[in-house]
Amino acid sequence: MKGLIQAIAPQARVIDLSHGVPAQNVRWAAWTLMVSAEYFPKGTLFVSIVDPGVGSSRRILWARSARHQFLAPDNGLLSWIEEPERILEWRSLTQSRFWLPEVSGTFHGRDIFAPVAARLWSGLAPAELGPRVVDPVRIPFPAPRRSRGGVEGEILGFDRFGNAVTNLRRGEINGTISIFCKGKKIGRVLRNYTEAPAGGPLALFGAFGYLELSVRNGDFSRLWRARAGDRVHAR
Amino acid sequence: MKGLIQAIAPQARVIDLSHGVPAQNVRWAAWTLMVSAEYFPKGTLFVSIVDPGVGSSRRILWARSARHQFLAPDNGLLSWIEEPERILEWRSLTQSRFWLPEVSGTFHGRDIFAPVAARLWSGLAPAELGPRVVDPVRIPFPAPRRSRGGVEGEILGFDRFGNAVTNLRRGEINGTISIFCKGKKIGRVLRNYTEAPAGGPLALFGAFGYLELSVRNGDFSRLWRARAGDRVHAR
Amino acid sequence: MKGLIQAIAPQARVIDLSHGVPAQNVRWAAWTLMVSAEYFPKGTLFVSIVDPGVGSSRRILWARSARHQFLAPDNGLLSWIEEPERILEWRSLTQSRFWLPEVSGTFHGRDIFAPVAARLWSGLAPAELGPRVVDPVRIPFPAPRRSRGGVEGEILGFDRFGNAVTNLRRGEINGTISIFCKGKKIGRVLRNYTEAPAGGPLALFGAFGYLELSVRNGDFSRLWRARAGDRVHAR
Repeated sequence: MKGLIQAIAPQARVIDLSHGVPAQNVRWAAWTLMVSAEYFPKGTLFVSIVDPGVGSSRRILWARSARHQFLAPDNGLLSWIEEPERILEWRSLTQSRFWLPEVSGTFHGRDIFAPVAARLWSGLAPAELGPRVVDPVRIPFPAPRRSRGGVEGEILGFDRFGNAVTNLRRGEINGTISIFCKGKKIGRVLRNYTEAPAGGPLALFGAFGYLELSVRNGDFSRLWRARAGDRVHAR
Repeated sequence: MKGLIQAIAPQARVIDLSHGVPAQNVRWAAWTLMVSAEYFPKGTLFVSIVDPGVGSSRRILWARSARHQFLAPDNGLLSWIEEPERILEWRSLTQSRFWLPEVSGTFHGRDIFAPVAARLWSGLAPAELGPRVVDPVRIPFPAPRRSRGGVEGEILGFDRFGNAVTNLRRGEINGTISIFCKGKKIGRVLRNYTEAPAGGPLALFGAFGYLELSVRNGDFSRLWRARAGDRVHAR
Repeated sequence: MKGLIQAIAPQARVIDLSHGVPAQNVRWAAWTLMVSAEYFPKGTLFVSIVDPGVGSSRRILWARSARHQFLAPDNGLLSWIEEPERILEWRSLTQSRFWLPEVSGTFHGRDIFAPVAARLWSGLAPAELGPRVVDPVRIPFPAPRRSRGGVEGEILGFDRFGNAVTNLRRGEINGTISIFCKGKKIGRVLRNYTEAPAGGPLALFGAFGYLELSVRNGDFSRLWRARAGDRVHAR
């Protein structure tokens, strides 16, 4: 993909946002994009590909907010970016003259996304890509709910240190209450890792404003055998 | 290596083609280069290092096709690029004045490849690097063969999702027949992952025109305990 | 971090030196920086973050040698760079007007390091960052010692191939003697991997002048169940 982009748009700058999204995990990709996009320059084009449906009839979408552009398969990957950045226009990539002449059934990143991204960077008008879309696939963001005298949420995924990111946001839970994961107590919400004993579990609001579960100097995911979807209570 | 290239040739652009070649796996490096090079711009210099013989008397080669240049240890890594791109000239790196003053026994990437690459990029004439070579080490590409009423091939290696890449090319086998791996049936050749049931095995022609074996939304390598060299039949 | 740097200093070049330092391993980060910095261009700013104390009251340091600048948490990460490059000035980052307006408790790389790095690159005078420091945290480099008719050292860490790097330097031990790890004999010091039998252990001086322990075409770390701190004898 980078070779192709360089060949078509030699001056384009490519930044790797993340290669850490687990295979087929569209939700974690959606979260990564949602919390990272605001730190990138105005005008950035995000090429986001987690695409279990590659080669099928699923659409490929181009989208635009006031600050950024996006390319992604139409599988919900762009759902959550709609909260921080309102999407103003959606289009479906149908004009194959901007793609590689031969399109494989398994690597649209190379065959479609990369050449389209490079051509957009070089000035191609997005309206050329294909028709407007009004019904992109959307994955609802899992909303926390009131439960057992507190708030119940879930683990969305894990960062590369094994910290669990939840859907519980600062403001939605009170910092003085206790956090439980899979029924086991973790404790009150701390401000940073050093407030916990070494090897001990802890909860804190992470860098993106969501409650995270960690083990100090350890790997929460492994030590607590935690998985995406595991229940987290604040009460 | 990147620091050195930047120091000698500040305007050079470095693209990471792959860091996913398993240690010492010269064949997988040869395959990666063979199927990727065509997508890179004319004039690209590929610095390809999988080098179990580093520090020994093995030669280091520079090579040139009509579109690209290559640097690699003389261990066969450049063998398979000769199919898509005819190599027009081979040279052996002998002129140590273009290397770091002190050459280690374990990291020629830093001591020889990076400074030579940066100097080539800055205009050094390849003829300065060392004498012409006519006998580079070549690893034969494993040819499929007729067998038991069909075609027999093998697994060449695995991509980062665990999909197995074989040496069976589109055109060499008929798409309507059945595929077997290690004697177990996988099924007929599909067009994309979504045509298989979730968790089920499948065979399709991958993005580079070779037959690949996968598990839908899973890791074929792990689930089938497959290894490079395992037999694959189409019949 | 890269998005922010790009937004503030669009012309800055970012090179990934290493993402292979294990979580919380400040010593291995110190070693990586110590042996790599000299190969980077004059004027390089190294942003080095292994930061178990993130969010606590630990300081963040800026430092300058004759050739380079550094940013790192004040946890000893910059200790060992002081041998190859004398640090001429230390400062503590206290001027929050150069940071993101909101600083999280877990990701100072994004909130402090990246914006400060981009502003330094854009011409910000380091004296603006905060006051001078005279007492940075220092981790002593583990010195080899005379022992049992030889020299005793230890494993500092492992490269991505599983080779063990020790604190025993060329010149400190005689190349004709035998090397032992955890009491088991490895053999004399070789010049390169090919001098050992396939699968056999070996010792050689690696690319940075330190004794390394390897298994030819194998993973020493795994096969010898070795860990940082394990004793290594030369006698």
